[in-house]
Amino acid sequence: MATITYNVTGMSCQHCVNAITEEVTKVDDVDTVVVDLDNGTVSVTGAELDDASLKAAIDEAGYEVVGT
Amino acid sequence: MATITYNVTGMSCQHCVNAITEEVTKVDDVDTVVVDLDNGTVSVTGAELDDASLKAAIDEAGYEVVGT
Repeated sequence: MATITYNVTGMSCQHCVNAITEEVTKVDDVDTVVVDLDNGTVSVTGAELDDASLKAAIDEAGYEVVGT
Repeated sequence: MATITYNVTGMSCQHCVNAITEEVTKVDDVDTVVVDLDNGTVSVTGAELDDASLKAAIDEAGYEVVGT
């Protein structure tokens, strides 16, 4: 099991949390997605996480990953 | 034709705009709904607008009307 935490800009409300959670949960092998609005982070836990796919999912939801 | 502009708190992103627009548009006789995130306002235009119904729709979307 691995966890990757991304720093993401533009997340401002519960709708943003839902949009990101929905997209990232679709990625293969993702177990949990935790969005922290105050800290601007998205923590993803799962087996065999694919960094590029996770970043693409966050981008697809309409947000920008600025770091990990 | 009448226009009522409400001051609404908690609107922070495009998802909020969509949520409010969707709920308020359902109210009878509403013609247009314009949400201004920067100013925190929701302007509703239509014939025979019912103030109570409009406030209820904004509340239903999850936001608080703090004035007009």
